[in-house]
Amino acid sequence: MRILGIDPGTGICGFGVIDGTIALDYGVISTPPHTPLEVRLEDIYNSLHEIIKQDRPEVMAIEKLFFKQNITTGISVAEARGVCLLVAKQCNLPIYEYTPNQIKNAICGYGMAHKPQIQEMVRVHLKLANTPKPDDAADALAVAIVHSFAMRTS
Amino acid sequence: MRILGIDPGTGICGFGVIDGTIALDYGVISTPPHTPLEVRLEDIYNSLHEIIKQDRPEVMAIEKLFFKQNITTGISVAEARGVCLLVAKQCNLPIYEYTPNQIKNAICGYGMAHKPQIQEMVRVHLKLANTPKPDDAADALAVAIVHSFAMRTS
Repeated sequence: MRILGIDPGTGICGFGVIDGTIALDYGVISTPPHTPLEVRLEDIYNSLHEIIKQDRPEVMAIEKLFFKQNITTGISVAEARGVCLLVAKQCNLPIYEYTPNQIKNAICGYGMAHKPQIQEMVRVHLKLANTPKPDDAADALAVAIVHSFAMRTS
Repeated sequence: MRILGIDPGTGICGFGVIDGTIALDYGVISTPPHTPLEVRLEDIYNSLHEIIKQDRPEVMAIEKLFFKQNITTGISVAEARGVCLLVAKQCNLPIYEYTPNQIKNAICGYGMAHKPQIQEMVRVHLKLANTPKPDDAADALAVAIVHSFAMRTS
């Protein structure tokens, strides 16, 4: 099962495509600071279509939003997330959503796990020499891995 | 100046196209309750493209988000808003954003104005026999009117 994981964001949107324990592709869609929001959203739209065309994932796994801290950042993350969901629908990819806690629990067995712990587990699981950089790419791979676990156990 | 006003939302997304004090078109893009989010977003995407193709507005005026009350609703409104901004960019429409307070102030001269007051002012300004229904269409016309005022005074 080829899974596209997405860590949504307007400035930096992480993506990672895995098949089992193999990382096929990962990286970020990023735009320079102060780029108008609509330009960023169009960039995410076009880049995601391109990634899906090239990597041919069968499903999209994406973080569910939780606003405990920064509501202003949260709004723009939701705007980017809307565009990611649209692209998944246009490409007929079923969508699976996981909360940050579900991701931490599934990857580290611990809902309060910190970012470096998750990144290390992603590295080990995918047998990579180094932790995937930037963090947003590692987070996208993490949500893809969580979905691969969920498929195995369901 | 032909202005497309948008009141974003996933269940019901209001739109209104005006030229001066003439309402050319208004209504809502709506989906039944419990429709999956991505289906709603694709519906908004396709319908907005259709509306722009048909009504040929020159700019988009859209409500800026403010989360004082319901954060969960706010997330889905932001997801819909991201898709509306994307469509505007794809159609080369410049985007103008107004906060709820700016809209109330411009339409009623009073930032604490209630919905029925705004709707009545929209009806009077556009010389309509009745207040536009549903509310989301009236709200979309309101933000379009606010932009027409802003153009006049700038």
